[in-house]
Amino acid sequence: MKSYPEKLSRLQRKFLKKLFPDSESGFSDGELLSCGVDASRKHAKPLALVKPHCAEQVSELLSWAQKERMPVYPRARATNKVGGCVPVKNGIVVSMLGMNSILEINSSDFVTVVQPGVITADLQRSVEKQGLFYPPDPASFKISTIGGNISTCAGGMRAVKYGVTRDYVLGLEAVIPGGEIIHTGGRTHKNVVGLDLTRLFVGSAGSLGLITKATLKLLPLPDTSASVLIGFENLAGCLKGAEAVFGCGILPTAMELMDKNTLKALEMHSEVPWPVDTGGVLLLKIDGSHESVAADLKQIEKALSQVSTTFLEKGSGDDQERLWELRRVISPAAFNLAPNKQGEDVAVPRGKVAQAIESYHEIGDKLDVVVLCFGHLGDGNIHVSVMYDKSVPGQSENALKAKKAIFSSTLALGGTLSGEHGIGLTKADYIGMQIGNAELNLMHGIKNVFDPLNIMNPGKVV
Amino acid sequence: MKSYPEKLSRLQRKFLKKLFPDSESGFSDGELLSCGVDASRKHAKPLALVKPHCAEQVSELLSWAQKERMPVYPRARATNKVGGCVPVKNGIVVSMLGMNSILEINSSDFVTVVQPGVITADLQRSVEKQGLFYPPDPASFKISTIGGNISTCAGGMRAVKYGVTRDYVLGLEAVIPGGEIIHTGGRTHKNVVGLDLTRLFVGSAGSLGLITKATLKLLPLPDTSASVLIGFENLAGCLKGAEAVFGCGILPTAMELMDKNTLKALEMHSEVPWPVDTGGVLLLKIDGSHESVAADLKQIEKALSQVSTTFLEKGSGDDQERLWELRRVISPAAFNLAPNKQGEDVAVPRGKVAQAIESYHEIGDKLDVVVLCFGHLGDGNIHVSVMYDKSVPGQSENALKAKKAIFSSTLALGGTLSGEHGIGLTKADYIGMQIGNAELNLMHGIKNVFDPLNIMNPGKVV
Repeated sequence: MKSYPEKLSRLQRKFLKKLFPDSESGFSDGELLSCGVDASRKHAKPLALVKPHCAEQVSELLSWAQKERMPVYPRARATNKVGGCVPVKNGIVVSMLGMNSILEINSSDFVTVVQPGVITADLQRSVEKQGLFYPPDPASFKISTIGGNISTCAGGMRAVKYGVTRDYVLGLEAVIPGGEIIHTGGRTHKNVVGLDLTRLFVGSAGSLGLITKATLKLLPLPDTSASVLIGFENLAGCLKGAEAVFGCGILPTAMELMDKNTLKALEMHSEVPWPVDTGGVLLLKIDGSHESVAADLKQIEKALSQVSTTFLEKGSGDDQERLWELRRVISPAAFNLAPNKQGEDVAVPRGKVAQAIESYHEIGDKLDVVVLCFGHLGDGNIHVSVMYDKSVPGQSENALKAKKAIFSSTLALGGTLSGEHGIGLTKADYIGMQIGNAELNLMHGIKNVFDPLNIMNPGKVV
Repeated sequence: MKSYPEKLSRLQRKFLKKLFPDSESGFSDGELLSCGVDASRKHAKPLALVKPHCAEQVSELLSWAQKERMPVYPRARATNKVGGCVPVKNGIVVSMLGMNSILEINSSDFVTVVQPGVITADLQRSVEKQGLFYPPDPASFKISTIGGNISTCAGGMRAVKYGVTRDYVLGLEAVIPGGEIIHTGGRTHKNVVGLDLTRLFVGSAGSLGLITKATLKLLPLPDTSASVLIGFENLAGCLKGAEAVFGCGILPTAMELMDKNTLKALEMHSEVPWPVDTGGVLLLKIDGSHESVAADLKQIEKALSQVSTTFLEKGSGDDQERLWELRRVISPAAFNLAPNKQGEDVAVPRGKVAQAIESYHEIGDKLDVVVLCFGHLGDGNIHVSVMYDKSVPGQSENALKAKKAIFSSTLALGGTLSGEHGIGLTKADYIGMQIGNAELNLMHGIKNVFDPLNIMNPGKVV
């Protein structure tokens, strides 16, 4: 097979400048360096940056890229934590931020049609004005895009009740290598016709084609919500509290956990409401009609009164934001514990969360790094931050050792290397711990159907 | 490529008898005829029937079948309405009913692990005993199996609030042609590692491999539910009623519609509660805690008091079953209108349901057949029964003409040929109306990765 180009030929550059005139393409060092990095802090310098404004332009690009065997790296806000956007094999970075229109919000069909560059929070605000609801809320929702959310199957806090991005994608327009514009799925809430190409694109991390339009399912907007922050003496207490809530037959919108190290980091960062004997915290949200939220809240309080807690604080309406602010500042607060961070987003079966976190703490103790665990208890998806100081000899190596140990422990409990972020570059070396050769071969076979020359986001897992 | 065998050679028969001893294989006319039909009433006679009891046996079968290029037709309770189970290219029917154990129900992990032959209702009852909930409820749930439900991505009435089978499949064990046993997904509620092979299997109608085990997500069991049956003067009234309910910010568990012809059929069949001026009926269910259901019910009644209704009847607990009985007897009752039936399960965007049904009625009037529409208004998935009398000259042809006209009208409204049943045999001729060549080629390419000799359920769409 033809090798990837080392640099752009004069003809190639001319082609790109013609297809993407003026500010739609960029070749300067500054532009190329800044579009070669993502939230993983991994980076590589591409050969060019282009910013399409329509699917036809993307189609011409992918027709050309196929002929030239030119790597193509889709990108939007690059909030990807695992290096999914990094152009490791040279090639062209395609910024989808120019295609950022909400094309339709239809309150009768409960559907919205959007271009990939729309910011998730902008879409949410727009549909909410019409009494509609787009639930997926990855932590990055204020800056990340729908196209990126689809490519990574973004989750979020509300996934406990409402599921993840996959559950809201009804149909896609995408361009595949060679330039064909394809349409998958449709506009109906149910649809079973042939193989499910739509969900195959969800989470495929730009490896199959470039998404140019998405039709998304909307729900009726719940009237209101309420939140409860509950302290427990220890991790086991948190899990008992969670069981008590689920035992009510209520599916909370969100159920977040903070472990003792997270509490410590927060205590060093902000005013915190919990008493000193608190060793773990749960943060719940419920939503629905005013009456049902009030009723469910009462029932949850009753259930929690049966287990041992250190404190409980409620919030409703805008007032609950002060509770969620604590959850939001965990990432910056973590740096109070150590100057460097290595973050993972493993998931384990819900009942194994306490066991998993205990094992991660043991790994941290053994390797002399601080392991801080927080996140989506409701679906077993734990963000594990290994905090260390790379200026101390051995700490960087220990952090890396901790990573592998955390993965081993997770898999031994029936878990997965990634609940939300994907594999990208930073976990590529570990994928064999989880996925067998037969399954990897099937993935490569499927990839090959869409992209026989491996030009879509090459250098990643598939 | 080697052609499919016309009959079993002595050696082939010997192999099957050895791998599936005694009652695990069958070759008699009676056995072969009865396993060659499904709920579509299409039929074909296979070469053999086998009933594996473990994945290893399935693996040996698919290793042999690959060498012999022997078609393999997975089957369980054969409730498929579109001929998906019919062995049209000879081959071996593989009944999965012998693999019918619930291997695990885990109330901490909110997960169950089952073999494919488990009856959906049996699983539901079993998990409910532990306070857990498996929502997908296709109309056939009392007799159909989890394996079949996964293979068709079965929907059901509760899909409005809880989604379809796809949304509950976390991981699969499957055997692919050649005999390799693969494992997709896992046991965690969130999981983004490589391409999504799990959801590719969901709805693939036995075209990729044979599912031998499934790990399914469970929810906490809601405390209670309540139902409301509401009459409207006409279809437009029903849609206004539905909008009023969604406008409350409440997502009903189920929202079913019955059109005027459905009401007529029911009136001829049972005692019905609605007054004569009723031209359309909605049947809603809501669920949750006792308090929230009571609160939501009050709010729904208030919302419905703003629109024009002909009557309203509520039920809770076991008492609501008499309301749902009306929904359940629609299929038998329909035969009061005409002796023959041709059923479709199209779906349209939710806001287009009234327009769609009106167009189906017009088609019926024009072709002198009775078109009866009922089903899942909440997700736009309408069951359209064309009732006709094949003993009247021209009626069979008209029914077939109606089918094509219904499909055209559905697609023109942005709909799909199938919301739940799939394409199978009965819609195979029409798939080109919905899916383009590029997309069909991708589906065939993917099929080819799993099944290069086309031995898995050949003769269907992929």
